[in-house]
Amino acid sequence: MQNFDYMTPTRLIFGKNCITQLPEVMTQFGRKVLLTYGGGSIKKIGLYDKVKELLPDFEIVELSGIQPNPKYDPSVLDGVKLCKENDIDVILAVGGGSVLDCSKAIAAGAKYDGDPWDLISYKVKAKAALPIVDIITLAATGSEYDPGGVISRTETNDKIGYVDPLLYPAVSFLDPTYTFTVSKKQTAAGCADAMNHIMEQYFCEDSTILNDGFMEAGLKSLMINAKKCLENPEDYTARAEMMLTCTYGCNRIYALGNSPSGWPCHGMEHALSAYYDITHGEGLAIITPRWMKHILSDKTADRFVKYGVNVFGIDSSLDKYEIAEKAIQATYDFFLSIGIPMHLKEVGIDESRIEEMAHHVAENEGLENAWVPLLEKDIAEIFTASL
Amino acid sequence: MQNFDYMTPTRLIFGKNCITQLPEVMTQFGRKVLLTYGGGSIKKIGLYDKVKELLPDFEIVELSGIQPNPKYDPSVLDGVKLCKENDIDVILAVGGGSVLDCSKAIAAGAKYDGDPWDLISYKVKAKAALPIVDIITLAATGSEYDPGGVISRTETNDKIGYVDPLLYPAVSFLDPTYTFTVSKKQTAAGCADAMNHIMEQYFCEDSTILNDGFMEAGLKSLMINAKKCLENPEDYTARAEMMLTCTYGCNRIYALGNSPSGWPCHGMEHALSAYYDITHGEGLAIITPRWMKHILSDKTADRFVKYGVNVFGIDSSLDKYEIAEKAIQATYDFFLSIGIPMHLKEVGIDESRIEEMAHHVAENEGLENAWVPLLEKDIAEIFTASL
Repeated sequence: MQNFDYMTPTRLIFGKNCITQLPEVMTQFGRKVLLTYGGGSIKKIGLYDKVKELLPDFEIVELSGIQPNPKYDPSVLDGVKLCKENDIDVILAVGGGSVLDCSKAIAAGAKYDGDPWDLISYKVKAKAALPIVDIITLAATGSEYDPGGVISRTETNDKIGYVDPLLYPAVSFLDPTYTFTVSKKQTAAGCADAMNHIMEQYFCEDSTILNDGFMEAGLKSLMINAKKCLENPEDYTARAEMMLTCTYGCNRIYALGNSPSGWPCHGMEHALSAYYDITHGEGLAIITPRWMKHILSDKTADRFVKYGVNVFGIDSSLDKYEIAEKAIQATYDFFLSIGIPMHLKEVGIDESRIEEMAHHVAENEGLENAWVPLLEKDIAEIFTASL
Repeated sequence: MQNFDYMTPTRLIFGKNCITQLPEVMTQFGRKVLLTYGGGSIKKIGLYDKVKELLPDFEIVELSGIQPNPKYDPSVLDGVKLCKENDIDVILAVGGGSVLDCSKAIAAGAKYDGDPWDLISYKVKAKAALPIVDIITLAATGSEYDPGGVISRTETNDKIGYVDPLLYPAVSFLDPTYTFTVSKKQTAAGCADAMNHIMEQYFCEDSTILNDGFMEAGLKSLMINAKKCLENPEDYTARAEMMLTCTYGCNRIYALGNSPSGWPCHGMEHALSAYYDITHGEGLAIITPRWMKHILSDKTADRFVKYGVNVFGIDSSLDKYEIAEKAIQATYDFFLSIGIPMHLKEVGIDESRIEEMAHHVAENEGLENAWVPLLEKDIAEIFTASL
């Protein structure tokens, strides 16, 4: 086991109708609120009106139109400007991971005098950030329980994971009923994103009985509950369990004390969605089984055996490579079964920019330090195998 | 899934030599320290000297001699007095769960003008508490990651679990090497305590795939690693994994969203160790299989099947009562195999006060609200079966 230093100061308020506690929670932080959201789905489900109704005594400034793969320009820059102009006390992010990720960058930028990109690109360490409260409407990223966000800068094809302990949300509201209207496509992509968060941590040199069992349970929970959610989008129990399983995804709690993995699939997928703006969870689902095949070797085979036997129930008496290959195929088949397009070409990516993307990943993501190191050549091979 | 509201503000600093960070951590809270500890084992392992060496610039007042099943009088009362007299800024608890539990009651009492028993007995809600830093030297209670402590008041045979969110330690240092010298008896009792924390949460009406897998992994981790620790007390990996598995015990993270269980074994054991001052983990181990037998019924059998199949690998094709009975026997056999005396008579308890203890539990522990309600008669039966 590795040494670690862990703390999550976020309060999770979970369950049906939990946002009735919103006024009491918001009052702790002040009266001037930046309300951030995306494209209007929160209006469709009545959540926008509900929030306004709950907060009649607050001064609310709005930033809407935050996109998936949230953009530095205009969203982060606009948000920072609004915070400064209106002397905002607290950000209330309502939506999925993208809205919350964007809000985290805004929270740090609002307390910084220079160009917020200095912070996101780690040129300058933030000294403070506005408090963030969120109401999450998508089970996927786990941003509601982690200190990071991913921000895209279109002109440079940068997609950066910006992480700082200052960015833990103060309070996250998780009402599974707000995920009832999430589309089949986004439900599946959210499941794949969360599964990948677990897999990225599972495949490492050194884990424990405790963490392995926790992560295997997380993967089984996501697979079983995603299918239930797709069959019956209003299955409260399935939506609720998916939500909590996703929430732990990037919090480190699944793997405290494990050796570092390097999060290779996220490193590679960032390029795909930076260059092509595809759905993050779909990009991850497409890459993951190809990455698995690429790294299968004597060094990694035992880990794949554990994964195959405990997650998919593959017969443990088989040859270890046979188990590993069956496990990789089962991973692919599961993603396919929930409707994810499993080839890059199906999401509009062809071979034309693979070399460029592989070069970008190799230069920026540090995957030479992953559990199984990935160099530019490896990354290009994985992309090509994913076509 | 049930609604919940969860937050753990404790920072965990985990691993070999982690206490080199102690000075930096303590500085955040002030210079006047109440150092609390037990009977001197921290001197034997050099930890007392190490702490003193690390904190030359701090004013340290000491409270030593805190006993297992820590006492209101003199320990809590003496500690509160020392804090008030010396205007203490922070408590540094060094030892096992008893030292930390006692320190929590002191932390609250130090900020209260009246009799600290008002707080512990929930007559008055604490408004503030001193910050607590701990260095834990025993893998058992999980007090280092929870907001509660158990305090005994000898003259009334009260043993009360005092819980308040103000009592989360600010920082817990967990260096597994400090548990290398823990005796076989205490290693086994710590394992039983932590296993029982998980079982208390596992046996309930409504759980999830995620929580069940997490808890089953916790139980397996404890059983496998306890055996390794008993064979080789300096097995770092086994001590480390036991330590973290124990740490989660009473934090609620193992079972967020589960329906309440009522913690019946703890309710019953509190009387045993209040009346007879036995080792808490041993008391729990003795009661647990008898309680399991007592509550086995059509209502609970499926839960025992899951437990038996997933924790002990019992053949799932057997009849469900057969699986349940095998699981209960396996629980008993495991405790016996790690050297725990499995009869109350072996720890000095005979039938003479069973009725009195059962009455005390029925009056004070609310076990009529447990998942399987326990009335005075049930409690007496479980005690009698444990003789």
